[in-house]
Amino acid sequence: MQPRVVIIGAGFGGLYAARALAHAPVDVVVVDRTNHFVFQPLLYQVATAVLAPSDIAVPIRWRLCGQRNTSVVLAAATEIDVERRVVTLDREPRTLSYDYLIVATGSHHSYFGHAEWAREAPGLKGIDDALEIRRRFLLAFERAEWAPTAAERDRQLTIVVVGGGPTGVELAGMIQPASRHTFQHEFRNIDTRSARVVLVEAGPRLLPALPEPLSEQAKRDLEALGVEVRLDTKVTGVDESGVQLGDERVDAATVFWAAGNAASPLGSLLGVPLERGGRIRVAPDLSVPGHPEVFVVGDLALIEQDGRAVPAVAPAAMQQGRAAARNVVHAVLRQEREPFRYVDKGDLATIGRHRAVASFFQGKIQLRGRIAWWFWLLLHIAYLAGFRNRISVMIQWAYAYFTYQRGARLLEGGRGSGIGADPCR
Amino acid sequence: MQPRVVIIGAGFGGLYAARALAHAPVDVVVVDRTNHFVFQPLLYQVATAVLAPSDIAVPIRWRLCGQRNTSVVLAAATEIDVERRVVTLDREPRTLSYDYLIVATGSHHSYFGHAEWAREAPGLKGIDDALEIRRRFLLAFERAEWAPTAAERDRQLTIVVVGGGPTGVELAGMIQPASRHTFQHEFRNIDTRSARVVLVEAGPRLLPALPEPLSEQAKRDLEALGVEVRLDTKVTGVDESGVQLGDERVDAATVFWAAGNAASPLGSLLGVPLERGGRIRVAPDLSVPGHPEVFVVGDLALIEQDGRAVPAVAPAAMQQGRAAARNVVHAVLRQEREPFRYVDKGDLATIGRHRAVASFFQGKIQLRGRIAWWFWLLLHIAYLAGFRNRISVMIQWAYAYFTYQRGARLLEGGRGSGIGADPCR
Repeated sequence: MQPRVVIIGAGFGGLYAARALAHAPVDVVVVDRTNHFVFQPLLYQVATAVLAPSDIAVPIRWRLCGQRNTSVVLAAATEIDVERRVVTLDREPRTLSYDYLIVATGSHHSYFGHAEWAREAPGLKGIDDALEIRRRFLLAFERAEWAPTAAERDRQLTIVVVGGGPTGVELAGMIQPASRHTFQHEFRNIDTRSARVVLVEAGPRLLPALPEPLSEQAKRDLEALGVEVRLDTKVTGVDESGVQLGDERVDAATVFWAAGNAASPLGSLLGVPLERGGRIRVAPDLSVPGHPEVFVVGDLALIEQDGRAVPAVAPAAMQQGRAAARNVVHAVLRQEREPFRYVDKGDLATIGRHRAVASFFQGKIQLRGRIAWWFWLLLHIAYLAGFRNRISVMIQWAYAYFTYQRGARLLEGGRGSGIGADPCR
Repeated sequence: MQPRVVIIGAGFGGLYAARALAHAPVDVVVVDRTNHFVFQPLLYQVATAVLAPSDIAVPIRWRLCGQRNTSVVLAAATEIDVERRVVTLDREPRTLSYDYLIVATGSHHSYFGHAEWAREAPGLKGIDDALEIRRRFLLAFERAEWAPTAAERDRQLTIVVVGGGPTGVELAGMIQPASRHTFQHEFRNIDTRSARVVLVEAGPRLLPALPEPLSEQAKRDLEALGVEVRLDTKVTGVDESGVQLGDERVDAATVFWAAGNAASPLGSLLGVPLERGGRIRVAPDLSVPGHPEVFVVGDLALIEQDGRAVPAVAPAAMQQGRAAARNVVHAVLRQEREPFRYVDKGDLATIGRHRAVASFFQGKIQLRGRIAWWFWLLLHIAYLAGFRNRISVMIQWAYAYFTYQRGARLLEGGRGSGIGADPCR
C-alpha cells in the first residue's frame, strides 16, 4: 500500500503537482469542484465572446488519464482534519484520508469588505464567471437596442471595469472593439460605437507588476481604443444602476470586477494563522509550519523571496505545484527537501489587436506594440493544453482577426459564424 | 411607411421566413426568446458531448445582419391580440403592432399528461436542454466512480432513452459508444463498458417515418452497439430512482425524453380551436382561418396533404416559412396567394459510426450502412449555417472519428482535447 497524496484543486498548482507525481511511488487523488482544468490567462476572451469555454478548458480526467496511480474526485472539500489527516467532501466518497496533502484552491477577487457588490459586479475566475460576464455584456446591447429612454440606452451602453491589473486591462481592451466593429451593423436603433467603457484603478498606474513605461504605454493603448482610464480612483459604491467613484456617479448597467485578491476560504480549514488576503505563510519547502505533510501552493500560499512576496500568478502556481510534488517524493524516500525558488519569467498583457506590453528578466527586456502582441499570441498558444485546443483557438483568433467578428456570441454559449467581404461577416 | 411583418420564433420556420423577406417591401421584426438560431438536427451531438453548442448555433442578429428592413427583438411573446393586431412581449419594446404575423414557435416533447416527469426526464429542443442532458450524462459516470454500493453504481450506469423516433435513436446510438470507448481508460473504480443504455418505444417499430426494413436495420444497428431496444413498451412511471415499464422496473439515474410532440403553448393565444397536440389547422396558404393576415408555420401548424398531416420536421418548417413569406408579399402586392405544397425530401437517421438509414422519394431509394452514414454526414454539413460552423463541426467529427474521444466533455460546456496513439487521447 503506497502512501496517498490528496490534492485539493486542479488549477495550475494542483494539476501540475499531480502530473509531477505520475511516476512517483504514491497513490494520488485529485479533488476538484469542476471536472475541468481552465487556462485562466485566456478567460477574459471567453468573457468577451472571442473564444468558446471549450477552447480553453480540458477535462481533468482526460489530462490525468495516463497516470494509473491517479484518480479524480468531482467534489468540494468542506473540512480538513490535519490531526487525523482526513479531508471531508460534500459528495461520495465523503472522506479521504491522506499521508500527504497539497492544497491548491487558489483565490477569488476581493470586494474589500463589500461582498454585496459581487452580485452587481461579477469577477472572473472560472468558466461560469466568464459565461456570466459574457451574458451581461451581450445582454446590455440587446437592452440598449430597445431601451425606452435615451438615459436608459446610455446606461446600457456604459460598461465599467474595476481593476487595472492584467485581467482588467485585457477585459477593457477586448470589450471596446466589439462595440466599434463587431456589433456595428447588427443593430437598427442604436449606434453601438457610442458605447462607453470605463476602466477604474485605485492605484497610480495600470499593470503595477510591469515597469512604469509599459504601464503608461498600456494606458495610451487603451485610450487609443476609446477606453476611459481612471487612475487613483476608488470605487466607493456599486448598485444595480451603476457605480460611485467618490463624488462622481457613473450610471452603468454592466460592471465587471477584476480587483483585489482574496485567497480561497479553504485556507481557514488548516487551523493555521492567515496572513493578509487570507493567504497561508508556508515554509521554504512549501509545507505548512508544524505540518510537514501538508503543502500549500499557488495563490493560497504566501512565501517571500528577496524581500518580496512571490506573486499570485499562473507561472508561480505551476512552479510551486511541481516543487511540492518533488518534496512529497523526497519525504516518501526519506530524502532532504528542496527549498522553493520562484523563477520570474516576466509579465505581459495584450490590449486589443496589434497592441501588447511585455517585460522579461525584471524589465531588462521590454516589448510593446506588434512584436509584443505576436509574442503574447505565440506564448499563449504554446502553453495551452491539448492539440485540439490549440487548433481551435488559432481558428477563433484567425476568424476574429480577419473578420472583426467574435466567435462565441451566443447568450447560451454558442459561436457566431461566417466569413467574407460582407461587413456582417 | 411599409407594412410591418412580425415573426415570432427564429427556428427553421421563422428564420427562413425572415430571410425570404429580405428584399420585400415590408419592415420585418423577428422576436425570439434566445439570441441564436439552433441547427436542431445536431442537438443530440451537443447532448452527448461530441459538439460544442457553438458549433450548431449562430446569432439571429448576425444571420439577419445584411437585411436593412429587419430588426431583432430578444423577448418572449406573452399575448397576441388578433383583433387589434398587437403582440405583447415580456420585455421592451413591450408591444409590437403588426400588419402581418407569422407564428413559428415550434413544439416541445409531450409527457402525455405527466408534466411532472419532465424534471426527471428532460427533453431535447434547445441548447439549454442539450447542456442539461450532457450534464446528467457526464455526472452519471462521475457518481458511479465513487458510488457507495454496487446497486447505486449500476443505477448510475443505467441510462434510459424514451422515444424511438430519430432523436431517441440517435441519442441512444451516441451514448453507448462513449462508455465503450471514450471513458474506458479514465476511471479507476468502474468498468464504464458495463454501462447499460435502454431505448424504449411505445410503438411496434423504431423510426416510424421510414420504411419498415430500415426500422429493423436501425434496431439491429443499435443492438450491435449494445443498446437494449424495447418495442411495444409504454413508460408508466418516472421518478428520481428510475422508470416503470408496465410491471418491469428499471433502476436508472438518468432518463432522457424524446417522445411525443406538443405544440408551443403560444398557439392558444390566437383564439382559434387547437387540434391534437395543440397544433393549429391552417388554410392552404398557411394562414389562420378568419385571419388572412396571420400565418402559422412549422411544428405548430397542422396541414394535410394527400390525406396525411405534413410531418413536424425541419424541412417542412423551412418550406412553410418561405411559403408564408411569399404569401405575405402576395398579400401586400394584392396578388393571389399560393397554396403550400410540401416536398418530402426523405428521412434519415444515424446510429454510431458507419451506421445510418436513409429513405428518399417515399422509400423508392433506401440506403443503409456506410453509404447512408457518409450521406448523412455530408447532408448535415451542407445544411449547417455559416462557414465557421462547418469547419468547426468537421474538425470535431474528425477528432471524434480518429480518437474515439468526445469534443465537449466539460460539465460547464468545455471541450476535451488531445490526439495521438495514447488510448487516453
